[in-house]
Amino acid sequence: MNISVRQPGRLESYVCGGWVAGSKEGNALLDASTGTPVAFIDSTGIDFTAVLAYGREKGGSALRRLSFHERALMLKALGMALLERKDEFYALSTATGATKADSWIDIEGGIGTLLSYASKGRRELPNTRVLLDGDVEGLSKDNSFSAQHILTPLLGVAVHINAYNFPCWGMLEKLAPTLLAGVPAIIKPASQTAYLTELMVRRIIETSILPKGSLQLICGSTGDLLDHVDGQDIVTFTGSATTGQRLKTGKAIVANSVRFTMEADSLNAAVLGLDAAPGTDEFELFVKEVVREMTVKAGQKCTAIRRVIAPRSYTEALVASLRDRLAKTSVGNPADEGVRMGPLASLDQRDEVRARIRDLMADAEIVSGDPENPAIVSGDAAGGAFLNPVLLYCDKPAAAGAAHDVEAFGPVSTVMPYETAEEAVYLARRGKGSLVSSVFTNDSGFVQEVVLGLAPYHGRVVIGNRVSAKSSTGHGSPLPGLVHGGPGRAGGGEELGGMRGVKHYMQRTAVQGAPSMLAAVTGKWLPGAAANSDGPHPFRKSLAELNVGDQLITASRTVTLDDIEHFANFTGDTFYAHMDEEAAKANPFFEGRVAHGYLIVSFAAGLFVDPDPGPVLANYGVDNLRFLKPVNPGDMLKVQLTCKEINPRASAEHGEVRWDCLVTNQNGEPVAQYDVLTMVAKVGK
Amino acid sequence: MNISVRQPGRLESYVCGGWVAGSKEGNALLDASTGTPVAFIDSTGIDFTAVLAYGREKGGSALRRLSFHERALMLKALGMALLERKDEFYALSTATGATKADSWIDIEGGIGTLLSYASKGRRELPNTRVLLDGDVEGLSKDNSFSAQHILTPLLGVAVHINAYNFPCWGMLEKLAPTLLAGVPAIIKPASQTAYLTELMVRRIIETSILPKGSLQLICGSTGDLLDHVDGQDIVTFTGSATTGQRLKTGKAIVANSVRFTMEADSLNAAVLGLDAAPGTDEFELFVKEVVREMTVKAGQKCTAIRRVIAPRSYTEALVASLRDRLAKTSVGNPADEGVRMGPLASLDQRDEVRARIRDLMADAEIVSGDPENPAIVSGDAAGGAFLNPVLLYCDKPAAAGAAHDVEAFGPVSTVMPYETAEEAVYLARRGKGSLVSSVFTNDSGFVQEVVLGLAPYHGRVVIGNRVSAKSSTGHGSPLPGLVHGGPGRAGGGEELGGMRGVKHYMQRTAVQGAPSMLAAVTGKWLPGAAANSDGPHPFRKSLAELNVGDQLITASRTVTLDDIEHFANFTGDTFYAHMDEEAAKANPFFEGRVAHGYLIVSFAAGLFVDPDPGPVLANYGVDNLRFLKPVNPGDMLKVQLTCKEINPRASAEHGEVRWDCLVTNQNGEPVAQYDVLTMVAKVGK
Repeated sequence: MNISVRQPGRLESYVCGGWVAGSKEGNALLDASTGTPVAFIDSTGIDFTAVLAYGREKGGSALRRLSFHERALMLKALGMALLERKDEFYALSTATGATKADSWIDIEGGIGTLLSYASKGRRELPNTRVLLDGDVEGLSKDNSFSAQHILTPLLGVAVHINAYNFPCWGMLEKLAPTLLAGVPAIIKPASQTAYLTELMVRRIIETSILPKGSLQLICGSTGDLLDHVDGQDIVTFTGSATTGQRLKTGKAIVANSVRFTMEADSLNAAVLGLDAAPGTDEFELFVKEVVREMTVKAGQKCTAIRRVIAPRSYTEALVASLRDRLAKTSVGNPADEGVRMGPLASLDQRDEVRARIRDLMADAEIVSGDPENPAIVSGDAAGGAFLNPVLLYCDKPAAAGAAHDVEAFGPVSTVMPYETAEEAVYLARRGKGSLVSSVFTNDSGFVQEVVLGLAPYHGRVVIGNRVSAKSSTGHGSPLPGLVHGGPGRAGGGEELGGMRGVKHYMQRTAVQGAPSMLAAVTGKWLPGAAANSDGPHPFRKSLAELNVGDQLITASRTVTLDDIEHFANFTGDTFYAHMDEEAAKANPFFEGRVAHGYLIVSFAAGLFVDPDPGPVLANYGVDNLRFLKPVNPGDMLKVQLTCKEINPRASAEHGEVRWDCLVTNQNGEPVAQYDVLTMVAKVGK
Repeated sequence: MNISVRQPGRLESYVCGGWVAGSKEGNALLDASTGTPVAFIDSTGIDFTAVLAYGREKGGSALRRLSFHERALMLKALGMALLERKDEFYALSTATGATKADSWIDIEGGIGTLLSYASKGRRELPNTRVLLDGDVEGLSKDNSFSAQHILTPLLGVAVHINAYNFPCWGMLEKLAPTLLAGVPAIIKPASQTAYLTELMVRRIIETSILPKGSLQLICGSTGDLLDHVDGQDIVTFTGSATTGQRLKTGKAIVANSVRFTMEADSLNAAVLGLDAAPGTDEFELFVKEVVREMTVKAGQKCTAIRRVIAPRSYTEALVASLRDRLAKTSVGNPADEGVRMGPLASLDQRDEVRARIRDLMADAEIVSGDPENPAIVSGDAAGGAFLNPVLLYCDKPAAAGAAHDVEAFGPVSTVMPYETAEEAVYLARRGKGSLVSSVFTNDSGFVQEVVLGLAPYHGRVVIGNRVSAKSSTGHGSPLPGLVHGGPGRAGGGEELGGMRGVKHYMQRTAVQGAPSMLAAVTGKWLPGAAANSDGPHPFRKSLAELNVGDQLITASRTVTLDDIEHFANFTGDTFYAHMDEEAAKANPFFEGRVAHGYLIVSFAAGLFVDPDPGPVLANYGVDNLRFLKPVNPGDMLKVQLTCKEINPRASAEHGEVRWDCLVTNQNGEPVAQYDVLTMVAKVGK
């Protein structure tokens, strides 16, 4: 026995820059396996209007002063600091009923999400404070009026109301995009497991990595907090649909059109392919995945598999295989060796699951497990919230009601047979919208029909087969780069999804005006904006000296037939349109022999490059190259190269500079346009 | 006098494939200038559950069978057909109180939105049924498990509940993205002006351009329709915040997490810059814009300027200029010559505006116009809903309440003085979230501070200055390519924004799996997916023969120092990293002289191009070119070229093919990666 011993104390909230206990003793939070108190929770006496104001004013203004890369580096530092302290979190996590594997998902999965946003943020966002969204929209032919969508952080706070099942991940997966966007957060963990969230927030605050006011914590009720949110605030909710819907229709939230993101439980389905007969790799993978999803976190996961949709002729073998494996799942106190599945979070929760199993029995029968008489290998049978996995079988799922509507939030799934791919899709959709579905098959025709059939009803669909077996992250794992959420019953929310998740905390605004005015707002040059071609060659300027709009207009160069033939023979690109006048004329796009596109860009570089060593270090790429008009022998090329975007790296001696490169012919007509990407030193030598 | 005469008839609804009248006579809809009945409206007896089912089943399945380009061409045909019939719409529009200029916004602005989506849809969307969202997310190092976000049409209907002020544009701006997404629509126009919507829908249906079930119309109450929407349906609402909030919290909408987009009236501000003193171009433009926004549609526009925020020292001159111009605005029956502004939509509406003006007088005084005694040049003074423009002045706007909260939905604005840019932003934000603001200035410092200050509270911000004066589309015009909507009080919705608006009607789903399985779902090749390098050179295949995954692996070519020097001298690109061993070594990215990036791509083309005439017609561009590793003299290049995406054009003999081009060195390390874009003939010759 190696249970971490913690004296039950009173949890504190971290608000307005300090830790405060509620004015009452509060409710006892019990260890899920033993029923003994872990902590007491109460938030009475907190002035929630002051909490909102502190976050908005103190936290918001501090975060908005940082650039995206600075915020990302802050998340990285925070993630690294938490990783160093992870043993402490694991020790306390056991009290929630979590096994070591369950805790890994919650603790290291949560920290991993922070680190993933830290790294993606630096890779996918510019090192600025304003994010541009989409391309410039030209609104006039003479480039005197254009538009650019921008994203700026909302000026309020994000109130995150989290579920009890992932006290760490649930906080961190929302915190990462919120802070990266530049918005402060108020975390309200579900009471049952709030002690673990409180511990982690304590460690976060101790690091002093986050600016004051950017993170507050409420242990206990949020009192009248939601009565005071306004249109610049965001509220997210993860938990039961009933509570979520009540909060979503709250007076202040509706009156002020407060963004409300909801992730509710859903009746996620897993579909076994028609090709995946017993004995195939996919059948075995499916059995493993269903068992894993039923038993991880004792099935208390909003992404768990609730409905197991399988070809009718395989269901007997499937039920037998599942029953075998489920029987081997030893249930007990997760602090003990050999325990594969812990208890539910509380006795109330277990009673709730038992009641829902009785509901499910309206159109299904139990084929494995006894919900009323738990068999456990350790723990307190009376005080612990133990329940063995329960598998049901519903023979007529198309006619069933409860099987598609009732969620038992525990180690409970229902097997339901189908005959055709169409029917499998129909049954999965009967869940009325889910967070995730999975399809196990090695048949690309089946996968196309079923995945496209499931897509409108799901936020995520996982395909399992022999190829991805070893690398798959599985049915139940939301990932930082992929959207998490589902339509309809699942709440209609969307979280994560990489930088998509960051934008949920920002306002999109279309800004229209003269290009120079837009450039002043966005910091990015656009066609029509003022340019400066005085002074030295722009390649002679370091980041410290270079300005957006600095421009080079080159001399001209004539492209001769000799050049084209020479280039063709040198490179080996003897495509007929370059070599054969008659054949070129027969091509619908050309009127005769044309220069190679690669010759145009090579000559352009010859025109704009400044050869001597200087601050421009390398050309690392080209974006959006389009050949706009054929170049024929005798045409004269000229380049206009304009500094478009400057992106100094937060942690290097150089940064990226994007140049707008416009190649024109002797008539001033554009023949090629592209962005040239260079690395430029921060200071000259 | 040239009033179009229409016998008042009973409007019909177009539901379940036929025109039906309500079972009662219904309410009379009156001509805004004369008070005489134009039509009667009633929808009693319609089975709204059947209407929903008809749209979902008949309309949805027909639309989803079409590709994006086919839907776009359908919108184009519809727009052209409506343009031909525009005179009829103009004639009837007069009854709503609209002048010719007002009707132009509604009728041709609406049709223009259809045509804009038709053209953008073909340019910005692929010719497929599934839309890919973002890049492939690699989830494993060995490319055995990846993810791709996709967008698929929701399977329900879009119920569009529209406002009375734009009976045509209000329908068409929502219909265009809805149909392009592949989702059927049910239109519910506001009763007051529903006769014009009904006429336009009648003409639309007569063209037979839209598939059956893709457009239904309800003239009159929607009865219990909103009680039956589900998670695959979408509801949009434009109108008053009170009604919108009631609908948004409806039982079925909340219980099924139905997407609900709301655009409510807002207290939009226009800010005159500190630099824009009387006599400047910007001052004159500002005066014109305020007058235009107050009088177009008699101020019955949710984007109209309600708050005029100007430097305190200019307000006296500003009020004088506005008063002069407003006094010249002749009010009367818009059917008559010389009338600049028509009546409000109804007498009720006029009474409402008068009451709101009384509210505004709590902290402002009237400085122009008499709300109680209209001066009109034509129309029926008793039966017509006439009101002259009313300008108010609020001297202490920071302390004011009503000035920022009360909206008089008519020709009414309030001038409020400010001292600093910060204060101007503060006052604009007091509107608690608006659809649009404008800033008139020629000072790029002022514009940066004010626009970034306004952005979080607005969906759109327009900058006005002398440069954009002639081409600007103005403060009040939503544009198809720009988002329309605003946070907080404005309803929190987002519409239009080009292809962003299409995505509102689709579900985003992250699909994870082995790359070959993803390719089967998306139709796009990705790294790790199966490739086929048997058979002829892929450039010898027409679109009819080519498959995604067709691949060419080329021979190798050594890059010599001679090649590098030769290329440098030929192109003129003698950058030191190519020419000078010592200088190259001093560069942080290189270990010695390197090949030009343009040399690498030129040699790559020499390796992969098949020279003879054939189905590949042209290389029209390159995307996402990145140089991943320096190429030094002696390195050997090899290319793997894989057909990634095939996009046949709906109306041409060719289509776009995107090739994944991977250039590796003798160690198999990637040195460059990019997409090569080609035009390929549909059939071989």
